[in-house]
Amino acid sequence: MSSEKAEAGTGKPPMRDALVAAAFQLFLERGYEQTTVDDIVALAGVGRRSFFRYFPSKEDVVFPDHERCLADMTDFLADGSDDDEPVGRVCDAARLVLRMYAENPTFSVQRYRLTQQVPGLRAYELSVVWRYERALAAYLRRRFAACRDGTLRADVIAAAVVAAHNNALRSWLRSDGQGEASAAVDRALAYVQSAFGGVPVPPAMEQPEDVVVVVSRRGAPLWRVVQEIETTLGRG
Amino acid sequence: MSSEKAEAGTGKPPMRDALVAAAFQLFLERGYEQTTVDDIVALAGVGRRSFFRYFPSKEDVVFPDHERCLADMTDFLADGSDDDEPVGRVCDAARLVLRMYAENPTFSVQRYRLTQQVPGLRAYELSVVWRYERALAAYLRRRFAACRDGTLRADVIAAAVVAAHNNALRSWLRSDGQGEASAAVDRALAYVQSAFGGVPVPPAMEQPEDVVVVVSRRGAPLWRVVQEIETTLGRG
Repeated sequence: MSSEKAEAGTGKPPMRDALVAAAFQLFLERGYEQTTVDDIVALAGVGRRSFFRYFPSKEDVVFPDHERCLADMTDFLADGSDDDEPVGRVCDAARLVLRMYAENPTFSVQRYRLTQQVPGLRAYELSVVWRYERALAAYLRRRFAACRDGTLRADVIAAAVVAAHNNALRSWLRSDGQGEASAAVDRALAYVQSAFGGVPVPPAMEQPEDVVVVVSRRGAPLWRVVQEIETTLGRG
Repeated sequence: MSSEKAEAGTGKPPMRDALVAAAFQLFLERGYEQTTVDDIVALAGVGRRSFFRYFPSKEDVVFPDHERCLADMTDFLADGSDDDEPVGRVCDAARLVLRMYAENPTFSVQRYRLTQQVPGLRAYELSVVWRYERALAAYLRRRFAACRDGTLRADVIAAAVVAAHNNALRSWLRSDGQGEASAAVDRALAYVQSAFGGVPVPPAMEQPEDVVVVVSRRGAPLWRVVQEIETTLGRG
């Protein structure tokens, strides 16, 4: 990492970016399976050792930003305060992943197509998604440590957030990166928040045992009713 | 499959079971990586071709029942009627997986430990879990086809059901298969149903626009309030 930073400091495009660009050029021209690490380093004009300094394997060059994004997500969650509403916080953490995809739509769409075609990359992606999900779940488990069924809630909400994020992300990728990815993701995450946003964090002090009355049309969608209750309870 | 059935019909233990038993004996004695397919077939007293008739690879012998369970799940979901509450139906489908694990606690616990130790098996398991999740999501997408954000709801609920199921299943496996797995899974799935059980399926006829009043303590957990609303609305 330090050599990459030093290189970036000189204003030259980092070698790591050159390797990713060469790899994708070859993957698109010849196919993923038909491209070797030797082909990639030859095109990038560097040695094999330079490749393996940045990427443990050929699969890793397909997902060059996930390690950084996972680290960013972990930092973001660690930096939170106990006042943060936990479900909202993990939704914001998921938005960091979206931002990484949205920063470079062309690359993201190319990678999406490649991943759909190569079963090995699909498996790799599942393991990356799993690591994001565990990072979110670990945060929620800490926040819900004092709750009954805290680990259950944490795991379920983390999975729901990841699924909502990926539903919106994949729609955007299938549309070739047209339109605003963030609007679709916001809407997807709002659905998860409407279902789980009211998971109570153990209160710092006893709550008064007063009564809440909600009046609703029978035909109203449940999420609207829940939203109304949350607002009334001051948890929204 | 037909040869296996014929063999079972004669009362002999099927060759497939013998291969699984031999494989696990060796995995436990020597470790997974140190065991070859040749070692397994030698211990089981059969030829290599018999192994590959049942299992495409060494990894597949670790999860011998998932293909059957996936097929059972798909059949179960296809056999449902339009009157089934969709979230309850996918919860029941998830219980089929639990039953497979609970049928043979010793084997399930051994496999769990093995999977924790071998990264390749962990990746294989993620891909299996993903297939279960997609089977549940495909069913929900059909059921929610006429709903706004139907695919989003389907994907999120499928992920939540799988996460809840796996949270309870893994607790049970970590406790060495002690106690009733089904009670923990029922409780975990009830949590998902309390969050999503009220996802409205497009009604066959107009609902009357009458008013529902819910009175609740301010300190009551949201899921209890939602459960109460669902019961009142007749969606529980």
